[in-house]
Amino acid sequence: KNEANGSNKIRRSVVVHDCRFENQEVKQIVLDTSGLDFNDFLQVVSKTFHIPSNETFVLTCTDRKGIDFDQYEELQEGSSLYLLRNEDQVLPQATLERIIFLPHYDTLIRSGMYEYYASEGQKSLPYAFAELIDNALSATSSNTGMRTIDIRLLFDESMGKPAVVIMDNGCGMTSKQLNSWAVYRLSKFTKGKSTFSNDYTQYVRPDPVPRSLNSDISFFGVGGKQAVFYIGQSTRMITKPACSPDVHELVISKEEFERKEQNKEDIYTGFIRNRKTGDSTHVTEEDERFLHGIIQEEAGKPSFTVVVVTGVQLEHITFLKQDFHLWTRELAHLYHYYIHGLNGNDMRASYRNSDCVSNIDIQISLLEKFPKMPRMVNLREIDNDMQTLYINASADSFEFKAYVDTEGTVEGILRYHPFLYDKETYPEDPFATPAVEEEEDDCAVHNHTRAKRPIFECFWNGRLIPYTTVSEFDWCALPKKAGAVPAECYSRISGVLFTNDRFQVSTNKLTFMDLELQLKSKDTLFTRILNGQEQRVKIHKEFLQWLKTCHEKWDKQVKFKGFKGTITRMDV
Amino acid sequence: KNEANGSNKIRRSVVVHDCRFENQEVKQIVLDTSGLDFNDFLQVVSKTFHIPSNETFVLTCTDRKGIDFDQYEELQEGSSLYLLRNEDQVLPQATLERIIFLPHYDTLIRSGMYEYYASEGQKSLPYAFAELIDNALSATSSNTGMRTIDIRLLFDESMGKPAVVIMDNGCGMTSKQLNSWAVYRLSKFTKGKSTFSNDYTQYVRPDPVPRSLNSDISFFGVGGKQAVFYIGQSTRMITKPACSPDVHELVISKEEFERKEQNKEDIYTGFIRNRKTGDSTHVTEEDERFLHGIIQEEAGKPSFTVVVVTGVQLEHITFLKQDFHLWTRELAHLYHYYIHGLNGNDMRASYRNSDCVSNIDIQISLLEKFPKMPRMVNLREIDNDMQTLYINASADSFEFKAYVDTEGTVEGILRYHPFLYDKETYPEDPFATPAVEEEEDDCAVHNHTRAKRPIFECFWNGRLIPYTTVSEFDWCALPKKAGAVPAECYSRISGVLFTNDRFQVSTNKLTFMDLELQLKSKDTLFTRILNGQEQRVKIHKEFLQWLKTCHEKWDKQVKFKGFKGTITRMDV
Ligand SMILES: Nc1ncnc2c1ncn2[C@@H]1O[C@H](COP(=O)(O)OP(=O)(O)OP(=O)(O)O)[C@@H](O)[C@H]1O
Ligand SMILES: Nc1ncnc2c1ncn2[C@@H]1O[C@H](COP(=O)(O)OP(=O)(O)OP(=O)(O)O)[C@@H](O)[C@H]1O
Ligand SMILES: [Mg+2]
Ligand SMILES: [Mg+2]
Repeated sequence: KNEANGSNKIRRSVVVHDCRFENQEVKQIVLDTSGLDFNDFLQVVSKTFHIPSNETFVLTCTDRKGIDFDQYEELQEGSSLYLLRNEDQVLPQATLERIIFLPHYDTLIRSGMYEYYASEGQKSLPYAFAELIDNALSATSSNTGMRTIDIRLLFDESMGKPAVVIMDNGCGMTSKQLNSWAVYRLSKFTKGKSTFSNDYTQYVRPDPVPRSLNSDISFFGVGGKQAVFYIGQSTRMITKPACSPDVHELVISKEEFERKEQNKEDIYTGFIRNRKTGDSTHVTEEDERFLHGIIQEEAGKPSFTVVVVTGVQLEHITFLKQDFHLWTRELAHLYHYYIHGLNGNDMRASYRNSDCVSNIDIQISLLEKFPKMPRMVNLREIDNDMQTLYINASADSFEFKAYVDTEGTVEGILRYHPFLYDKETYPEDPFATPAVEEEEDDCAVHNHTRAKRPIFECFWNGRLIPYTTVSEFDWCALPKKAGAVPAECYSRISGVLFTNDRFQVSTNKLTFMDLELQLKSKDTLFTRILNGQEQRVKIHKEFLQWLKTCHEKWDKQVKFKGFKGTITRMDV
Repeated sequence: KNEANGSNKIRRSVVVHDCRFENQEVKQIVLDTSGLDFNDFLQVVSKTFHIPSNETFVLTCTDRKGIDFDQYEELQEGSSLYLLRNEDQVLPQATLERIIFLPHYDTLIRSGMYEYYASEGQKSLPYAFAELIDNALSATSSNTGMRTIDIRLLFDESMGKPAVVIMDNGCGMTSKQLNSWAVYRLSKFTKGKSTFSNDYTQYVRPDPVPRSLNSDISFFGVGGKQAVFYIGQSTRMITKPACSPDVHELVISKEEFERKEQNKEDIYTGFIRNRKTGDSTHVTEEDERFLHGIIQEEAGKPSFTVVVVTGVQLEHITFLKQDFHLWTRELAHLYHYYIHGLNGNDMRASYRNSDCVSNIDIQISLLEKFPKMPRMVNLREIDNDMQTLYINASADSFEFKAYVDTEGTVEGILRYHPFLYDKETYPEDPFATPAVEEEEDDCAVHNHTRAKRPIFECFWNGRLIPYTTVSEFDWCALPKKAGAVPAECYSRISGVLFTNDRFQVSTNKLTFMDLELQLKSKDTLFTRILNGQEQRVKIHKEFLQWLKTCHEKWDKQVKFKGFKGTITRMDV
């Protein structure tokens, strides 16, 4: 019962299989090698197996290589050895060799590297941050007051080495939960069944809520780990659940794994430090002194979680500093409906429906060395993310629902961006890289519309899945034959889909598995939502009617007819 | 030193931390609970910590929940307990609690699910097969004779349950190598440093070879495991290295993991069966009787590896049967240059350069129940994969090389597909789904050309990375201003890039990380290869000259000029 990774020099036993004789059962005997050198061991073998002194034998590993002094020293605990007359002799009987195949620790520390660093290069760092925000959203979902998520980039060298800190005022973790945080691929679905069961009951899917903003954004049991090791090389989790006066701390780091490997210690063991709140006496390293401040903030908080990532990659630091507005905007985009509530960031709304106002504060601060000023932004303040642009440039909207199978539900909104006087109002991404943008179709209107881009951005449990878009449905696509509505009106719509987690996403939450495929199944049922009421209608007809109305009501083309010549008014 | 996953009912010790007194050091004592019920244990605690009988105390877990009879029984080996005066008391000192955080076994059995089941749905199954072919290519790379990779789909129920079998005549594995096969994320780069070191020397990158066809297609230490558990639920590895007379067998299965979890056994231990060749006496299950035949084939083979996957998902079986021609074609595409050699499948070549002929046979057989006939195909026979179509429809080619940094090398070929008489010869994918195909540009020529699709398919170490394409380079893109060559000629080129593994790919080998980004760096140096000779020239000019020549030499437009009217010849 020893799942050790290395040989134990002090106490070591090996299994010797006596395979010398064709017609004899293979006897296997466990021999304790502790304190024996190779010669001693050979003596013990001779004696144990009653080998006459005039009989020759060889002792090999199961790869049939004879053992010498050095190899003997290197043998691992529990190794199987063969006792043979000669090295090439056929085994009289099959032998069973006990092996251990613990996943390598790169499972934890390198997985994120390939998960996030998709074909998009540096742009993927915000998606690693998103995993930590996902966790904080889940943890704060039962909060009664504000849900505060505080991301601090501590890049002030006078305070110690660079660190990325993510704090939330959520439920925190018991020490058992903190332990299972570190277990790779232990998901909420498997927790119930596993040995960690005393801490968890079977996972219960949350009740349906509008636009699936259910804060239940955990799925695979990998996100947090992949994210922290994509950002840096060491993580300190500091957490306190409401039910206990103690704070729990766990450090997992690449360095620690390498040290354990070197010393042939168990790779997947560690220590949780349980301590009173505010106690930072264990922080003794000079370059970690920023931790004292963080730990002092614990006072008075009933529960919280702090993730401290150090060993941050240099290129990440550069990116986070230089492209601050870019990646914070991307986060504001991902969590648009969590931050702004059900109706999103409608800056024109004269009334603010209090039902829809969000209690989620996601605050980001970047601290550099004096005299550089700190930069701070609350994601709610960002008003140039694409959803904000779409919402505020829309004149009208069309809501619908799609049912796939029995449990897959999708809510959808289409928005109309009219032509006004002399230009399209369809919003353009001010930061789009030219490479991504498609060539404009020459036959279409001359300023910006959606053109051939997909209509829908897609949100999963309320959170944007950034690399999946849905182009269109047959009922809202430009018809082959010219119809009642001018073709260009079809390029004036943007859209959003909100799915629940019956639709699967990839482990890195960057793409849906097969959302479009499922939605385009012939069994998918569409209904229209009008004034909050669901209506079973012909969606195709409804849409066409809506689009026609939009065109007539909102598009305003000014044409100067009957040009007569230029006159100059002398009277002004 | 016990990295166990469960409690051991027979022998169990717990660590009791005496946290009763504010100003006293926390004493921690390991107590053996074996054979003690809860009351006995309380007695032992009282005695050990000298607690006066009139003093009350509570015993809690580190989550501060008091322990009762049931919880006591459930305590795991090595658990930490607190001895307190009351449950809310502040810890006088920090305690260290030993934890184990072994990755969950879903790491092995579910990872592939999300890796391959990308946004493409069912179409990803061939890419799981590809991981096993990758491994077989690596294993056979030192073969002197033929390299044979045999994929058999045993779907004949009269022979047992459905099985997918991949056999190769490569180097096989020693039992230690078979052990490390099972270690998730143990890559060739980490092997050298790890505890498995006695079997491996530090990884040596192979010398550069033309088009990077180096058969060195292992990278992450995950491919085989992800693939087999994406295909099915159980894997039997059967292998024999040349240096040993023994065959090694290892079974890893979902069922086995679940059983070990239930019985609280170590999750990551198992047994390798070492046996003589051809010995199938251990196969006793009726539904595995197809194994007898496979094991009988071992006779006389110096070394080999057989991967047997069972518990194959039903939808996979359906797909493999129904779309046989589709997925075999996709494999022929992935390995085109391994199967056909350096110059690819040029069916028009009058001579066959013996240097370029491949010794790799990838044979696929699908066996169903009589009277269904078996289907067999050697990937080399497939002549409708896109590379074959491109090669055979090309009239001319332009070879080049790109240097990125010091070690990234890319070889490239552009091919010209001329306009002939009345139509374009640019090959169309006969199986392309309409959804993927872009709308044809109305301004371009009226039959099929590349249109806006990317020019380059990309091969990594000679193997196609299917989801990454490179659109173009500035020197071969259609210039903004009309130039010496008609615009439509730019749509008549297809291309291939061959990279070495200095360019990173994602773990599932479906996408490059940032190939395009790197290639488009301003430091990238392009040279032209002409008649096998590298030339440092202005690539832009060379390309233009080549394209012009292609147009003049190969494009043949027939125009009927001076139409006079229809006449009827009465003399025939
Ligand atoms: N900020 C937090 N507060 C409380 N608990 C947390 C927090 N972050 C993580 N956890 C706990 O740790 C577990 C593991 O987190 P992790 O992000 O690694 O995986 P996951 O969220 O379960 O799944 P996914 O792979 O989808 O992210 C979570 O399920 C949750 O129970
Ligand atoms: N058919 C085979 N013959 C011999 N050895 C093999 C074979 N298949 C796998 N192996 C060994 O097992 C190891 C693990 O294989 P696996 O495919 O899981 O990972 P990998 O090939 O190392 O990396 P990647 O994730 O890129 O596939 C290989 O590195 C190789 O040493
Ligand atoms: Mg998570
Ligand atoms: Mg592999």
